[in-house]
Formats: sequence, structure tokens, C-alpha cells
Amino acid sequence: MYKVVLDVMGGDFAPNSTLKGAELALKKFPDLYLILVGKESILKSWEGKERVSLYYTEEIVRMEESPKVALKEKRGASIFKGIELVKNGNAQAFVSAGNSGAIVAGAIFILGRLEGVRRPAIASLMPTLKDPIVLIDAGANVDSKPFDLFQFGVMGSVFVEKIWGRKNPKVSLLSIGEESGKGNTLVKKAHELFLNSKLHYTGNIESKDIFWGETDVVVCDGFIGNICLKLSEGLVEVILEMLKTEVKNSFLYLIGMRLAKGALENFKKKADWREHGGAPLLGVKGNIIIAHGRSDAIAIKNAIKIAMSFIKINLVERLNKAISETIKMEEKDEFN
Amino acid sequence: MYKVVLDVMGGDFAPNSTLKGAELALKKFPDLYLILVGKESILKSWEGKERVSLYYTEEIVRMEESPKVALKEKRGASIFKGIELVKNGNAQAFVSAGNSGAIVAGAIFILGRLEGVRRPAIASLMPTLKDPIVLIDAGANVDSKPFDLFQFGVMGSVFVEKIWGRKNPKVSLLSIGEESGKGNTLVKKAHELFLNSKLHYTGNIESKDIFWGETDVVVCDGFIGNICLKLSEGLVEVILEMLKTEVKNSFLYLIGMRLAKGALENFKKKADWREHGGAPLLGVKGNIIIAHGRSDAIAIKNAIKIAMSFIKINLVERLNKAISETIKMEEKDEFN
Repeated sequence: MYKVVLDVMGGDFAPNSTLKGAELALKKFPDLYLILVGKESILKSWEGKERVSLYYTEEIVRMEESPKVALKEKRGASIFKGIELVKNGNAQAFVSAGNSGAIVAGAIFILGRLEGVRRPAIASLMPTLKDPIVLIDAGANVDSKPFDLFQFGVMGSVFVEKIWGRKNPKVSLLSIGEESGKGNTLVKKAHELFLNSKLHYTGNIESKDIFWGETDVVVCDGFIGNICLKLSEGLVEVILEMLKTEVKNSFLYLIGMRLAKGALENFKKKADWREHGGAPLLGVKGNIIIAHGRSDAIAIKNAIKIAMSFIKINLVERLNKAISETIKMEEKDEFN
Repeated sequence: MYKVVLDVMGGDFAPNSTLKGAELALKKFPDLYLILVGKESILKSWEGKERVSLYYTEEIVRMEESPKVALKEKRGASIFKGIELVKNGNAQAFVSAGNSGAIVAGAIFILGRLEGVRRPAIASLMPTLKDPIVLIDAGANVDSKPFDLFQFGVMGSVFVEKIWGRKNPKVSLLSIGEESGKGNTLVKKAHELFLNSKLHYTGNIESKDIFWGETDVVVCDGFIGNICLKLSEGLVEVILEMLKTEVKNSFLYLIGMRLAKGALENFKKKADWREHGGAPLLGVKGNIIIAHGRSDAIAIKNAIKIAMSFIKINLVERLNKAISETIKMEEKDEFN
């Protein structure tokens, strides 16, 4: 039995999306045991259901709330209570579509970092012309240091290899030119660390090349990673909007647009990591899956599925092992 | 008469694109005087032409060459000779589609910075659903400091107001959340500077919102700006590629794609700043226009047009005045 905690209160469409997602997951995965955390009024009707436990709490962290303040003043909220259930061994993974900053802060504070991990990072999926790749960090950290980027690369590599089954995954560093010398100070120093590592490091990658799918892991600071993800999201939406404007004056265009819109919507789907079940927070002592704020029931079900796969292959243990090997690397001052 | 230097050797399609561009520009703008810099063998046939002077040089900076090395070892190259013509008062503006790093390095070294400008920056155009906006810095600087970002905002604001004629342009700071507290250390500190300025500062903007056209100037470090520009470019290309793949199995899709492709190509055109004549380097003592490496003749003509508009409104003088006012602002240690 895989024991997964679901934060029923988290997400723009919660609790409808989360409850329906829970139903779908229980139906689909017979070896799933769900612990639902949320308000009693919402969960009451689930009492007595098979393979389900309930954990009542009346507090919620709102989507725009400050993670720090929430962690201090709302320790009873569903996000933190859910993570505590993992910490105490009552569950093996936590899934939430709630305030991602609060999930990161809660996971680090309550579960703690894996030994040697300086900064846990979010591994987000990026769609490409070929297979999806991982972008890490997608926004858990700003102001990363060179050694942090290196550890993101190690964790991303383990993730892609163990979860997606790609042997010897290629790791690339996001920069403004392919040549070694290109980039800011952070990237140039991180480049040295990667060069001297055992990773399958392919050097710098330019942002325009990400979508061709020639690498497996793209490493960057979380400020930049988050900007890249949101820029892609925004651009696809604007192109759809532009297509609508373009067609106004032409009947043929109207037909064309209707059809092409399907293709673009498909890409949008591909681009949206909720389709793939959410992004894991790597580097904490437990399986944490951050689902998209706009998750619907299917996205929640997929996030639960991902959580189960993490438990199955014992991802945390594997990350722990890979990271402990990096600690042996000399940590020169300049990389910190 | 507007005296503009054109680097005939610069660009992926030079000298064909540059010579044809020069022809187009001379035909279109009767008050244009062009100084062409390049190899004698290429320019020989232009001798004696009206409103044209020639300046022969046999050296070229290649597209992928290190700017630093080029500046040291190839001072006779067309880029540097062309900038020197501006420096010596023989011309009022310089246009090149060549190695942009070398243009930036050459302009800073040969012309010098405007008084008080710490880092000249590239102002690139971004297409939006409404009017185009300016992204500054698009790649001249990495590792910017808070006060640098603030000056980028001042220069971008002057550019949009004086060149595009938008009154009181809105200036926004690129970050990972709209709220004041969001961002990395650099952005948080720059935010304070903007808040205390006379600019029409609208606060943080998220990357996903850039394309909706609600602001006029987006300010960021050049490492991030360059990544954003190239990501947009790469994503549009990949979407076109995906549309091709999508249609393979469907006749209807094939028709739809053909039509929608037109719309997407239109957007691509909009997204490409060569259509708008290249990006200026702001903050040096002279008018410098960096055209896209892939510029064709029309792009070169447009870049020359932009150069003429800079001369006409005396952009450098206006930037100089705006910047000198920023120097009065207290430069606290934390912003440097």
C-alpha cells in the first residue's frame, strides 16, 4: 500500500478538484491509501470510506499569503499538517496544489534537508519537440550560489534517470552563449564544478535551444527558472490571442485558426506540468509534490500517481546517496 | 543631412544585405549621407556615388570572436573604425549587424560612457498584443547592480518617451511575483530605488504578463533579458515546428496549418526586432544601433532609419540630461 497525504484545501479549484481527484485516484490505483487533510465540513461525508483516513483542520494558507508568516502563525494549516504526517511516518508522500512558497518553506522546516543539500529545488517539466526535460530550479531559490546550481544538476540527473528511466542523462547549464566563457559570474563558476564532476555534463545551453529537446536537465537559479517557465506560459497564451485577432478579417483565416488552435492547445497542454502530475521539491527528507495552482481533478490524480512512483523507487534514498557523494567534492570558497 | 556610418561587413548575410540596405536607404531618405566601412574590393564600385563616402579596411571581427580579443588585436576592423568615425565627428551615428559584443565593447572603449552612466545597456523591442515595449538590458551586462537596473529604467523611459513619443512611460521591474517583496536581492533593492524616483514606476511585472503590453519599459539584468529574448524566439520557432508535426495525420489540419502559419509568421515578424531597425546601445557618447545578425536589406534600411531618428531628436543629449539627474540621487552602498 502506498500512503499519500493530499491537501484537500490547496488549489484554485479546491476542494472540488481535490476531492474529485482523490476519487479518481482511489478508483484507478488499488494499492493507494489516501490521507485527506482539510476542513471537517468538507470531509465529513468521506468518513468510513475504504483506503482513506481523514485529518481535520480548519486552517488554510491562502494562495497569496506570505510563506514565512503562514509558517509562523498557521502551523495548523492543511499544508503544514499534511507535511507533518509525512514527517511522523504516517504517510510516505505529500501532494498539494496550494501556496507553493508555503509548501517549500514547510517542507524544509518540518522535514529538513537531506544531509549535504544546501537548497532544495523544484524540478519542473519542460515540453520539447522530443521528450520532456527537467528544468531545475523552477523557483524555490533566488540568489543561488555556484555549488547550489551544481547540486540542482545532481538532483535533476538522479530524478530523470530513476523516475523517467533515462540512462546517463545529459545535464546543461542555462546561459547566454554556448561557449564556456559565456555567462554571468554564477554560471561561469558553476560551469567549473560541472566540468569536474561525474555527471554527463554537456556545457552551456541557450534558452532558444531548450525546446528542441537535445538535453535532459537544464540547470539554473530559481529566479531565472521561474521567469522562463512563466514567459513560455505567457507567450503561448498571447499567440492564441493573436491568432484570434488575425482571423477577424478573413473567413479562410477563421477556418485555419479553428484548426490550428487545436494544435496550439495541444502544445499548451504539453507545456503544462499539471498534465504530468506536478513538480517535485527535491532535496528534502520526504516526497513532496507541488501541483499547479490551477490543477483540476485529473491533474490531482496525476500528482498522486507521481507521488506513488516516488515511493516505489525510493527517490529520497537515491537522492540522498547521490548528494552525499557531492559533499566529498571540495567546497572551495569561490563556489559558495 | 544626417551622417550615418554603416558597417558593410557586419551580419550573417553581409555584404549583400548591407549594400542592398544602403541602396534602399539612400533612395528612400534624401537627407541621408552614408559612410560605408568595409573591404576595398567590395566597396570599389561605389566610388563617386552621391551622398556616400567610403572608408576602406581589410579587417573584420567574426560573429563568434571574443569582443575583448578583437578590441585588442583588430582595432582596424570595420566595427571599430566605424565607431571611431562617430567619435571624431565625421558621422553622427553607427549601424552594424556584426558581432554585438564587439560593438558594445568598442562603443564603450572608443566613445566612452555618458557622464554618470555606469553600464550602457541594450534596449530591445518586445512585441505585445498592443504596442511594442522596450526590454532593457537585452544583453550588454551580466551581474548588474541595483543602481545599474535603475539607470536602465531611466534610459529606457527616455527612449520610449522621446523616440516613440509616449508620454510618461510606465516602467516595470521584471520579477517572479507582482508583490513588492518578491524577487531576488538585486530586484528587491532596485525596487526601492525606483520607488523613490520620479519615473512612472508601476512595480514588479511577471514574465507571463510582458506580452499583454500593459507597460512600456521592462527592466532587468542583461543575463536575464537575453535569456528572455532568446526563449521567446526559440519557443515561436518550436511552435511552428510542432504545427508541422501535428498536421501530418490530418488533411483538415494541413489546411488549417497553412493558414495559421501565416499568423504565426506574422507574429514572428513582430517579435523580430530587425523589423524595427535594430536595438540601440544606450548610455554611450554617440548613437549606436545594433542590428540583428540575420538582418536582410530591409532590416539594414530600417536600422539606418532608426539611426536618423536618434540624430534628429538628439537622443544622446536627452539621455545625458536624464542620467545626470540620477547622479544626484544618493548612491547608497547597498545599491552598488
